[in-house]
Amino acid sequence: MNGEFDLTPKMLIYIEFAWQSVYPDAHQEKPHVNFASDNVYGVHPSIMQAMVEANARLTDVSYCHDDGAAQVEAALSKIFEKDVKAFFVMNGTGANSLALSTICPPYGGIVCHETSHINTDECNCPELFTSGAKLITLAGEHNKLSPKAVETKLQGFVHGEHGPKPSALSISQATELGAVYTPADISALSAVAKSHGLKLHMDGARFANALAYLGCTPAEMTWKAGVDVLSFGGTKNGAMILECVVFFDLKLAEDFLYRRKRAGQLLSKGRFLSAQMLAYLKDGLWLENAGRANVLAAEVAAAFENSAGVRLAAPVEANEVFPIMQRHMFEGLQAAGAYFYEWPLDGLEADQVCGRFVLSFATPQDDVNKLTALVKRLGN
Amino acid sequence: MNGEFDLTPKMLIYIEFAWQSVYPDAHQEKPHVNFASDNVYGVHPSIMQAMVEANARLTDVSYCHDDGAAQVEAALSKIFEKDVKAFFVMNGTGANSLALSTICPPYGGIVCHETSHINTDECNCPELFTSGAKLITLAGEHNKLSPKAVETKLQGFVHGEHGPKPSALSISQATELGAVYTPADISALSAVAKSHGLKLHMDGARFANALAYLGCTPAEMTWKAGVDVLSFGGTKNGAMILECVVFFDLKLAEDFLYRRKRAGQLLSKGRFLSAQMLAYLKDGLWLENAGRANVLAAEVAAAFENSAGVRLAAPVEANEVFPIMQRHMFEGLQAAGAYFYEWPLDGLEADQVCGRFVLSFATPQDDVNKLTALVKRLGN
Amino acid sequence: MNGEFDLTPKMLIYIEFAWQSVYPDAHQEKPHVNFASDNVYGVHPSIMQAMVEANARLTDVSYCHDDGAAQVEAALSKIFEKDVKAFFVMNGTGANSLALSTICPPYGGIVCHETSHINTDECNCPELFTSGAKLITLAGEHNKLSPKAVETKLQGFVHGEHGPKPSALSISQATELGAVYTPADISALSAVAKSHGLKLHMDGARFANALAYLGCTPAEMTWKAGVDVLSFGGTKNGAMILECVVFFDLKLAEDFLYRRKRAGQLLSKGRFLSAQMLAYLKDGLWLENAGRANVLAAEVAAAFENSAGVRLAAPVEANEVFPIMQRHMFEGLQAAGAYFYEWPLDGLEADQVCGRFVLSFATPQDDVNKLTALVKRLGN
Amino acid sequence: MNGEFDLTPKMLIYIEFAWQSVYPDAHQEKPHVNFASDNVYGVHPSIMQAMVEANARLTDVSYCHDDGAAQVEAALSKIFEKDVKAFFVMNGTGANSLALSTICPPYGGIVCHETSHINTDECNCPELFTSGAKLITLAGEHNKLSPKAVETKLQGFVHGEHGPKPSALSISQATELGAVYTPADISALSAVAKSHGLKLHMDGARFANALAYLGCTPAEMTWKAGVDVLSFGGTKNGAMILECVVFFDLKLAEDFLYRRKRAGQLLSKGRFLSAQMLAYLKDGLWLENAGRANVLAAEVAAAFENSAGVRLAAPVEANEVFPIMQRHMFEGLQAAGAYFYEWPLDGLEADQVCGRFVLSFATPQDDVNKLTALVKRLGN
Repeated sequence: MNGEFDLTPKMLIYIEFAWQSVYPDAHQEKPHVNFASDNVYGVHPSIMQAMVEANARLTDVSYCHDDGAAQVEAALSKIFEKDVKAFFVMNGTGANSLALSTICPPYGGIVCHETSHINTDECNCPELFTSGAKLITLAGEHNKLSPKAVETKLQGFVHGEHGPKPSALSISQATELGAVYTPADISALSAVAKSHGLKLHMDGARFANALAYLGCTPAEMTWKAGVDVLSFGGTKNGAMILECVVFFDLKLAEDFLYRRKRAGQLLSKGRFLSAQMLAYLKDGLWLENAGRANVLAAEVAAAFENSAGVRLAAPVEANEVFPIMQRHMFEGLQAAGAYFYEWPLDGLEADQVCGRFVLSFATPQDDVNKLTALVKRLGN
Repeated sequence: MNGEFDLTPKMLIYIEFAWQSVYPDAHQEKPHVNFASDNVYGVHPSIMQAMVEANARLTDVSYCHDDGAAQVEAALSKIFEKDVKAFFVMNGTGANSLALSTICPPYGGIVCHETSHINTDECNCPELFTSGAKLITLAGEHNKLSPKAVETKLQGFVHGEHGPKPSALSISQATELGAVYTPADISALSAVAKSHGLKLHMDGARFANALAYLGCTPAEMTWKAGVDVLSFGGTKNGAMILECVVFFDLKLAEDFLYRRKRAGQLLSKGRFLSAQMLAYLKDGLWLENAGRANVLAAEVAAAFENSAGVRLAAPVEANEVFPIMQRHMFEGLQAAGAYFYEWPLDGLEADQVCGRFVLSFATPQDDVNKLTALVKRLGN
Repeated sequence: MNGEFDLTPKMLIYIEFAWQSVYPDAHQEKPHVNFASDNVYGVHPSIMQAMVEANARLTDVSYCHDDGAAQVEAALSKIFEKDVKAFFVMNGTGANSLALSTICPPYGGIVCHETSHINTDECNCPELFTSGAKLITLAGEHNKLSPKAVETKLQGFVHGEHGPKPSALSISQATELGAVYTPADISALSAVAKSHGLKLHMDGARFANALAYLGCTPAEMTWKAGVDVLSFGGTKNGAMILECVVFFDLKLAEDFLYRRKRAGQLLSKGRFLSAQMLAYLKDGLWLENAGRANVLAAEVAAAFENSAGVRLAAPVEANEVFPIMQRHMFEGLQAAGAYFYEWPLDGLEADQVCGRFVLSFATPQDDVNKLTALVKRLGN
Repeated sequence: MNGEFDLTPKMLIYIEFAWQSVYPDAHQEKPHVNFASDNVYGVHPSIMQAMVEANARLTDVSYCHDDGAAQVEAALSKIFEKDVKAFFVMNGTGANSLALSTICPPYGGIVCHETSHINTDECNCPELFTSGAKLITLAGEHNKLSPKAVETKLQGFVHGEHGPKPSALSISQATELGAVYTPADISALSAVAKSHGLKLHMDGARFANALAYLGCTPAEMTWKAGVDVLSFGGTKNGAMILECVVFFDLKLAEDFLYRRKRAGQLLSKGRFLSAQMLAYLKDGLWLENAGRANVLAAEVAAAFENSAGVRLAAPVEANEVFPIMQRHMFEGLQAAGAYFYEWPLDGLEADQVCGRFVLSFATPQDDVNKLTALVKRLGN
């Protein structure tokens, strides 16, 4: 781990001795090394423990009005150096779609990257929860939006009510191609958005990974750069169910309790969400987890970059690696027992294919080693 | 698991000594006895343990396509004596609203009791997930619908497209006033519904409680009586997050994967839902839990019935008790530390008030004893 | 045109001699007398003439941005003694549903009478255009809401986000049972609504009939009594397609252009709507038409009231009559060639039935005479 | 008024001398020549006459259940050589959005051109009426979709419920760039669509113009080539309000009465729609009007093509011309009094601009002559 990322001693033990032994026997049963997604991995022991402890309270206030929920809001306010309003929801799709519903009316438009999760991986939930808003999609290198592209698009909305009213800009941090917006990037996008009357949403499904990469503060990466509402995700980074909609513009939170309930995003036994979040944030666990995944991603990235004929589709700035390789290598990796997805990408040559490798806080170092060895072997 | 996270030994004790000591120390810390809702209580130890065990698998298939989900479908098919399709969702509101979306088009109407959970306690989620269907509400004793009232209502739809197209009938088992439909009741309602082309949905948030009361088979209480789709709830009865949409009419399940995803009702780390359900169904835990809650409810009911000037708003057939009492008694109970809600009811006299007492699988016997003693004392 | 439909000269006579001969011969071709609805009748000649004249302009600005639309807004502002914003829509259902969308969020509730047009005769359009708001229905004599019933209902919303957020109150002027709210009635309802944070909508499908009955000013019947937004209808009262959403609270009109367009309620050749409205308002034609229909309704009402065994379900204060009669009389009227609908009504005896008789600006006096003679004959 | 329809004498001349002088004096009042849109022009005299005649019936059945509506369905069935179901709606946006709602579920996707009217000019009505379906947009020359592009896009939907379920393909005939799909083009697209389980919708806002260009039968351009449902437009081609949803796959029409009503697309005084359509179809008026507009478009196109430095963005196959010219020419035309829009187009050079010139059945020949003379002068 690098200096920016101070793991607690216990974590080091896990990492040195026991990522092979967090679940000491379990992975032995699996012949394969798994890079399919962050969410194929389970829950960090500390978070699981917190859930068990939360169960020891005979009763607790239900429907996310428990004391724990208030503690979470306070903890996030501290982390973000600003009073925020924070609401648990059930998953990332719910977080994004509900967040967007607060900044885009049913007749509005949401500018986003054409590959953004809200456009490609949430079925039509954004349309549902916003009551039919339209996603206005743009291309952009490394799945990042550029201020210029956004500006040009917005200037094209000259015929009023015949089209949607552009109302929101949504960016993914990190992007679905593993790249990260710097605070300066975000500020520039925000400036364009605000000049046209749009609010800014950040899909932070991998918020911690991006933050660990940038080494800036959570505030710098969000409201100081113009973000109005954030989907703050923890499920991919060590929790079981942990997604929060965080409002920096507090007026947007008005009636959010109703929005959440009517969208079926309210859990009755909310103490188990509070417990997860408090454990997730405690002693920097969230950043530790993310940092470890990032480091592993860097190892995987290096292996691919050193392999002849392979290039990365985007710089590896979080916990995902997208190598473009020859199909025979792709198939060789899968045949050898590596689990990962083919990733759709325009502009590839006929025999090229892009793979997606996702690293988790819980990916065993051994598995990474196996993969990098495989890459080295197949790349020659 | 390391020492910090040592579940097993104590857990076994819980189970062996069953219920009088589920959380032997925990409730001592609480000065109050809590009958506010089933969901103020936590998770049954066996279910919690199953979640912890599920976490021991290093990886699992995500998005509810894990082997456990298939095992759950098989287990439910066995329980219901019929091949069913079963899908995890995130909560009861989601289960009901999504189930209804499969049997009622956006221009349709859903006949239900005016006090049904879908009408009064799910904000506008049924409207959202059905894309705007209308709830057609009826009165009915003990919050039960009568075949005659449904028939009369349906005969009134004579002006075609100017009103909604009645498409679904939804009943709550048990009702929101703690009453239970017998299989004969359900068959009679189904006959009316089917004769007008409506499908039949059952909100089974307290399915196990109703079943434990009736002593019939799950099949008799559902598809054999005409139920097409069921919200099968476990959260109130000992799980953390456990709601399933169960289809008896398998054609209705077509594309349900899409419906679930677009409604934000799909959990990525689905193994934790499978684990809960398998533990819930194992060795009849679900019926054991429900049975215990029902028994406690009967004790509470008896206490109220024996109290001068108190009558029950409905027969106690599940785990809820609705005594109508003088306001001074109501206030006396609360002052003495009993947690419960006032329940809105028409037709009360000025100084009368109805309370709702919900019994959980985990309500301590001591707490019930305290309550019944209080009732006895205040009733005299 | 043949003699039956010679517009100009005779029209003057019509107006002077009032309506006894709008289409003097036309109805001779019809063996039946028609009281089924206002909309079975056609368009007032002056309005048709205005449409023909509008067509003489070779081109005009499209999409309701024509000069005529501005003139309409100015004319309505004058009539209402207040600057209003007014938008043409395509029909009454569209007007009501879009108006409600401006005062009720998707998670909100709209308090209305259980028999209101928005609840019973617009399929699920209010739910659609409001993105799933819930209609909260109340009973009330003569289909009028009482302040007390509204107050009681609103006080029952004590559990926050679990139910809809009551946001709007909608009243029909005149009601669907032909009764009229006085300005005092409306003010009292508005006071209740406003004290709970609800906005007030008036469905004015028969606005002119109510106004003609009350003899007050349009301002007194609307914004001075607390109405925030009005569906101002002309179709039933002599136009072809003439419905307008009129905002007294101008902030509500923000983005209404988008709302209208996205709801499919925008006509491209808008000049034909402007032309209708300008003709409708010119020289008081709208009130003339309504006044004549009201007078005819009073004649019909008197005939029924003088008939043994018949009583009116509600006082006749607009252009509709709802007599409750023996079934043999009902059938006798229909057998004799009178067109009218049976009207659903609770609390009737087994052999009783309620009929609805709607009078139009264009109902021939002869037809009314035939009906009243029939009533007299059958009533004995 | 003469015998049947006393249009002023001048009207008779219009009809006899046809088109060169439709409104011979009217346009004199206008200093400008207007090519902004088809809908800036009015209603063909025969259609207006039919509306006036429809008004001569004292009463008629309302809500589009009049005899005229049945006659329209029969007339369209004859024209299409197949029993069709046809439903009047209020405008083209309503027709498209409702038609799509019958072939695409709320969780579905609609493949269409990125510039299609449903994507760019109907605000979010398709999303509203389909309950939140997603438009999946593609590029394509002359705004036409290619079978290959559709096939490639559909093959990319490999991750099931995480994205929308591709359910419908929608094409515009003619396209928004004035090009026309041949029956062979449509058949090829249909084959791709059907092989993936998609239904085929045609936006026929300019159906008659395309048909007049192709010279094929209506059947060949629609169901024989695989079209399942058609938006059949007449408003742009001489009517006032004339849009019909025509089903070739009759099962899709089930419950369409409900869909139309709940979408606010049902007119009460439907006789005025029937009258328009019957007049529109009578004696081939629809094709006559379209043919004239096409001929004028060809004249305008020729003028531009003969102008140095001007090229057409697409072949002129209907009634629209899209010349790409130097900005000074564009501005010169506008300064000289020509009304037309700038059209957004990718790939233009810095000093180039594309204009859109729409020709109507009612565009005076004089105006076309003025325009072509201007083009000739400014082009040199």
